[in-house]
Amino acid sequence: MQRKNAAVTLETLYKIFTIPESEDSTLAKIEKEISQNVRGFLKAHIVSSDTLPVNLEKEFADFKIPDDPVYVSQQADFLLSKVVSQSVHTASPRFVGHMTSALPYFMLPLAKMMIALNQNLVKIETSKAFTPLERQVLGMLHELVYRKSASFYQRNLQNQEVSLGSFCSNGTIANITSLWVALNRLLPKSKGFAGVGEEGLFAAVDYWGYKSLAILVSKRGHYSLQKAANLLGIGKRNLIAIPTDQNNKIKMDKLKQKIIELRQKKVGIVAMVGIAGTTETGNVDPLKDMAEVAKEYGIHFHVDAAWGGPTLFSNKYRKMLAGIEEADSVTFDAHKQLYVPMGAGFALFKDQHALSTIEHTAEYIIRKGSRDLGRRSLEGSRPGMAMLVHSGFRIIGRRGYEMLIDMGIEKAKLFARMILESPDFELVSEPELNILTYRFLPADAAPYLRNGDKRNVTEANERLNSLTVAIQKEQRDKGKTFVSRTALQMDKYHGQTINVFRVVLANPLTQEKHLIEIMEEQRRIAARIMMEDKSWKTGT
Amino acid sequence: MQRKNAAVTLETLYKIFTIPESEDSTLAKIEKEISQNVRGFLKAHIVSSDTLPVNLEKEFADFKIPDDPVYVSQQADFLLSKVVSQSVHTASPRFVGHMTSALPYFMLPLAKMMIALNQNLVKIETSKAFTPLERQVLGMLHELVYRKSASFYQRNLQNQEVSLGSFCSNGTIANITSLWVALNRLLPKSKGFAGVGEEGLFAAVDYWGYKSLAILVSKRGHYSLQKAANLLGIGKRNLIAIPTDQNNKIKMDKLKQKIIELRQKKVGIVAMVGIAGTTETGNVDPLKDMAEVAKEYGIHFHVDAAWGGPTLFSNKYRKMLAGIEEADSVTFDAHKQLYVPMGAGFALFKDQHALSTIEHTAEYIIRKGSRDLGRRSLEGSRPGMAMLVHSGFRIIGRRGYEMLIDMGIEKAKLFARMILESPDFELVSEPELNILTYRFLPADAAPYLRNGDKRNVTEANERLNSLTVAIQKEQRDKGKTFVSRTALQMDKYHGQTINVFRVVLANPLTQEKHLIEIMEEQRRIAARIMMEDKSWKTGT
Repeated sequence: MQRKNAAVTLETLYKIFTIPESEDSTLAKIEKEISQNVRGFLKAHIVSSDTLPVNLEKEFADFKIPDDPVYVSQQADFLLSKVVSQSVHTASPRFVGHMTSALPYFMLPLAKMMIALNQNLVKIETSKAFTPLERQVLGMLHELVYRKSASFYQRNLQNQEVSLGSFCSNGTIANITSLWVALNRLLPKSKGFAGVGEEGLFAAVDYWGYKSLAILVSKRGHYSLQKAANLLGIGKRNLIAIPTDQNNKIKMDKLKQKIIELRQKKVGIVAMVGIAGTTETGNVDPLKDMAEVAKEYGIHFHVDAAWGGPTLFSNKYRKMLAGIEEADSVTFDAHKQLYVPMGAGFALFKDQHALSTIEHTAEYIIRKGSRDLGRRSLEGSRPGMAMLVHSGFRIIGRRGYEMLIDMGIEKAKLFARMILESPDFELVSEPELNILTYRFLPADAAPYLRNGDKRNVTEANERLNSLTVAIQKEQRDKGKTFVSRTALQMDKYHGQTINVFRVVLANPLTQEKHLIEIMEEQRRIAARIMMEDKSWKTGT
Repeated sequence: MQRKNAAVTLETLYKIFTIPESEDSTLAKIEKEISQNVRGFLKAHIVSSDTLPVNLEKEFADFKIPDDPVYVSQQADFLLSKVVSQSVHTASPRFVGHMTSALPYFMLPLAKMMIALNQNLVKIETSKAFTPLERQVLGMLHELVYRKSASFYQRNLQNQEVSLGSFCSNGTIANITSLWVALNRLLPKSKGFAGVGEEGLFAAVDYWGYKSLAILVSKRGHYSLQKAANLLGIGKRNLIAIPTDQNNKIKMDKLKQKIIELRQKKVGIVAMVGIAGTTETGNVDPLKDMAEVAKEYGIHFHVDAAWGGPTLFSNKYRKMLAGIEEADSVTFDAHKQLYVPMGAGFALFKDQHALSTIEHTAEYIIRKGSRDLGRRSLEGSRPGMAMLVHSGFRIIGRRGYEMLIDMGIEKAKLFARMILESPDFELVSEPELNILTYRFLPADAAPYLRNGDKRNVTEANERLNSLTVAIQKEQRDKGKTFVSRTALQMDKYHGQTINVFRVVLANPLTQEKHLIEIMEEQRRIAARIMMEDKSWKTGT
């Protein structure tokens, strides 16, 4: 029987703002299920199905906001059957292709508390205690990275005249904020010139006598840097990709050479960016060396540690990030390896005055001299996510995060060994942090790669590339296990680009048995594909 | 007795990812309280106190992430006593100074579901059904604004080659995204030039033969436009403030005059911005007239409808926004008058191809031709807030939103009448939407304003300015009722700037009795201040 739509009256409207869902309502039951057993809820309701996107899209084709409302229970049913069921099981221990993983249980009720409080961090009048709380969280992360003295933090942590960082909705905003500050420091105000922010980029480049601007990063830099170069008016082509070595780390000689070349051409270098955890392979640039070069040439040094930043918690592995404490700015993400729900990044600044270069004020909000966090942020209204980060820091603690980091790196090493020991898989990039890449390598293709000449290698890789894509797509669509996919240019294959599976081992629930399952499924899929495609049997 | 810190072991760590809080835990109890009675929870736990910020900050002075964890219950106690208690009661019917108000009950369990699913909308591989869901929400809003044909939406709603808008974390990002697109359309690729995004702003301005760039908006424009002008390299001083009339609407003759002047000077006009609901006074620019001018001169027309957009739901008041359907881009906020929790804005585009001008791709993510929403967004990782907007649209419906909008505007008119009828208050700006401004006006000051010469008026206003600030601060610190405050330049007072109370009537729970309470409290505070400051008794 078709349930009639609810009629909207002032009374029903008032109700939804004042009367909670009754305990036996659909929504209350869903909520209880989530509270009592979120893993069970996700497992029960997310359907492993290979529904094609085009079929999925049919469920979301209405383009009109309905005139009359539906009952809450109707919407809850709709969401369960059409949205939850067709979501991605990001928390599954068998889904090791994402940077999003399982969340600690306590994050759920705390997130609900955050939503109920509905504070707006843009100004103190709508956030009160959340403002010093957010400053504290920024300070704690600053201390993790920069390890300044106690007196430094006592002076600056809660001093509204300075900022240790900016809390952002994501790492992209954090990278943009960092480079925005760098740009304002390269083209500051001076005699007869009010600064780039005030006068604009064309006037600034002209005043400071540059022919053009550039940002330098290794070719493994995150695509958000392209967005930043575009948005800030620097131009995507002026984001210069420096070659990397076999371990995906920036080549220092090439970097220095480029700096010298740009200087001779009077190109203003806005920033050089070091990566602490490349998105594709999880490698870390030689930050110490980069910091020295940055100092030598007086260039803003930004480190994108969105992925690898929390490695600083580990006594054993922290040394990989040595030099990060000399960065002028650092991007950190909380929804990655701080295990906080989606939507929390940070731009941290060594110099507590750096963010003043982008300060804004208005009469009705973020008044001059005020405590309003919106004075020095790119964004406007923001929720109280800082409460969740703060709770992670306190409930998991440094030692807890250390264990999580160590576990991930050691699990990646284990998986790498498992791949190396399997003749039908090729390990493409060794894990430095907790990310590695590999591919399925059928017995009849391997000899062509090892001993073949360039033409043989190229042909073999082309066939393997199709196979890798086919396996990854089928595995994804089956929805039981998941690895992601990327493409890497390989020196050892004469610069050819090959497709690879990409694995991120950050979910503490992932165990060896899950890794075995993933490989087994890939073998099964590969076997089926190769059986249907006769060309594999006879070799390339 | 001091409770010992928890020791962290692999076992305890595993527990927080796998075992829910027990039903008698502090956190579970808090959650239950929120579920059963969020209003009661907020009322019981938010303490009305006048704790000074400096004292509050002392509670958030630790700058080190603790080595050892605390129990979840300890953190829950801390949050209740130090954070929740000192939060702002944004949902209170007596707090009418914010743009944040009460939330419908169903938003809380749905928000929890969203957090539990922890999808990432940047790409389809981490969002699946959430991707078409978000596209649907954008399409529904697009239809509300642009009312295109059914075939238009059937063609474009779920077509990954185009975008009807970009879902943003806030209105500031939406304004920046809109102007970024406008900039890319003013300085596009052409013969021998790859476009501003690729080549940079200095090269683009040079190529297209402009001397400078500008954005035009009335002097009531939101400060996020300053951020945009700064960030995009246009320069804050090139955000040109056009004078407004007595009703805070842009003066069309001044706008046209400025356009002609800029054209003669070869200044490229990136966009002209119309405001649908000024932040301070809630007024709407003559959008129809602006659209005509924009068309005549071929200028990108952006409408900032972050506040007033949902007025389109009202059959009675929609006409105030006539012309918005001709805007090239429109900013909308969901965490304001769509009654969704903090963190949801939209940039909508009339032309489904507009966002292609800022398209980005990368190998491992947002591949070319993919369905990944991150291809055409400023931001990276984003949560599934679209689910909450979708639920609002379905559970409240067009008619429900219409009632909410009509109620707000009529309540503002009622409050304006109450102020007009009170000789000890002055209504400064009449409500057009649901925002008004006023101030307390002691009997002995009124005559100086009415009949006095410029010097008398100026002196009287200066004293009133201090009084207004003092009343607003004391009222805010007492924490029982709240109005915000802004400063308006007044033609009728010879251009003098006066401080005013600012009231936003969007909370459906606010009733006439609450408005009476607010005025009564202001009278009481004023009486006390004036008694202590003898100068008031004898007049100015």
